[in-house]
Amino acid sequence: MSSESELVRIYPIGRSGREGEESDVDRVTVEEPLEIRVGGQTLAVTMRTPGNDFELAAGFLAAEGIVSRREEILKIEYCRDVRSAEEEGNVVIVRTTAPASGAMDRARRLLLTTSSCGLCGKGSIEALHGSFPPIVSDARLDPAVLLALPDRLRREQAAFRESGGLHGAGIFSLAGEPEVVREDVGRHNAVDKAIGTLFLAGRLPLGNSVLLVSGRASFEIVQKALAAGLPFVAAVSAPSSLAIDLASESGITLVAFLRRQTFNVYSRGDRLERRAGAR
Amino acid sequence: MSSESELVRIYPIGRSGREGEESDVDRVTVEEPLEIRVGGQTLAVTMRTPGNDFELAAGFLAAEGIVSRREEILKIEYCRDVRSAEEEGNVVIVRTTAPASGAMDRARRLLLTTSSCGLCGKGSIEALHGSFPPIVSDARLDPAVLLALPDRLRREQAAFRESGGLHGAGIFSLAGEPEVVREDVGRHNAVDKAIGTLFLAGRLPLGNSVLLVSGRASFEIVQKALAAGLPFVAAVSAPSSLAIDLASESGITLVAFLRRQTFNVYSRGDRLERRAGAR
Repeated sequence: MSSESELVRIYPIGRSGREGEESDVDRVTVEEPLEIRVGGQTLAVTMRTPGNDFELAAGFLAAEGIVSRREEILKIEYCRDVRSAEEEGNVVIVRTTAPASGAMDRARRLLLTTSSCGLCGKGSIEALHGSFPPIVSDARLDPAVLLALPDRLRREQAAFRESGGLHGAGIFSLAGEPEVVREDVGRHNAVDKAIGTLFLAGRLPLGNSVLLVSGRASFEIVQKALAAGLPFVAAVSAPSSLAIDLASESGITLVAFLRRQTFNVYSRGDRLERRAGAR
Repeated sequence: MSSESELVRIYPIGRSGREGEESDVDRVTVEEPLEIRVGGQTLAVTMRTPGNDFELAAGFLAAEGIVSRREEILKIEYCRDVRSAEEEGNVVIVRTTAPASGAMDRARRLLLTTSSCGLCGKGSIEALHGSFPPIVSDARLDPAVLLALPDRLRREQAAFRESGGLHGAGIFSLAGEPEVVREDVGRHNAVDKAIGTLFLAGRLPLGNSVLLVSGRASFEIVQKALAAGLPFVAAVSAPSSLAIDLASESGITLVAFLRRQTFNVYSRGDRLERRAGAR
């Protein structure tokens, strides 16, 4: 179930630095939605890395108090009656002994929500395309500006320096000036706060701005950028497979592992253009 | 709204290393639940750091496609009719122009769930006490064993080395031997997979084991450990305020910033005992 091939997928990328760009490949963490069903009801949809899905479902039910002993789980299996090929292997059905409806209701009521898409696999991306049009933007970003952004974000993140426990999200102009920087214990919240600030200022869509997150680029980060019309998403750390897929399909320039000297380009690298060079 | 005092809170801690322990204080990221209501319905509950809550709500609604223009939000305010003092400032009501029910239904259906508690503030912790009894355990853990765990976890995390994008969760014996190590793009999934594996093996409750997570210790990580009966939770990175509160109230030994030479103890440090010393 958890062979390495399921955890990591290979993507073509561009590796960029001050000296130029070269083509390469990158090994990327796989991210796909998993729907957990109990007693005919959807209990939860979580974005996970495939592998050990039955253990994930069992652990989730135990954490929710829906089951407390091994014997209460009769069977765990993948749904064979899936609605699309993309759902294959992404829907798990758990059969339990107890009439779990009371605990289920409580669990569902108490479930936290952190993201925006609970459909399965590729279907979710197509569903999103329906809601948000792909990004069409002639904006260009100088790699030198990009390389300077992480330092800029860190300088604005006063609270992170104090506690070491806050994610940062910053929206910057194409010249590298911060338009808004927000911090939160949750990366998705930091992004919502940053985009929400500009939304309330009547500034959306953000066709000439760059979103930078201090951590990883997951599907939900790219999805929020798409909703805000942002053509550029950059992350200090790794991207997920579904983040890359969504960025590619919706015309977003996705950059990750953005450090002082180098970064990786996962989609729409044509928008990155040296200002000093001939055009 | 986002003064530093709201983002960071001071907790008493023990700083430990091979040479002993000293008392100190630590500045900890605040984590509290925020409920977002639209049109009389709960749209989402998210664990966030207080501050810029209205912007967070606006950004969330924009990302969900519930609003697309500034004018569609008529008013954002804190709920004044809260059910408990702990909800004060943790429930935001958004009034929109559009009859948002269609978009709301879609958004609610598509919302991802990642965690387990959507009540507010202290109330949630008390609610959890009702479901899961506090940990009662005479288990003792040698700090030297604890200090060796992060290296052990990393050695078992084959896929992380490849992609840099996977969280790891390991459950270890009190002697420091790995019982199970799982990886996932989501930290909470990695924990569910690790606990679920031992649950399916009929091993719960885990009264003589240690949970180690590669990243931060949030509320949901400690909550999952509590459900599994784990007396020890350790994190390589920072804890949140609500993680510490829950660990303290439920008798869990919480250790964070666990590095090769040092760690911080946030609750129940009495369970950490040098094996060589007199007892």
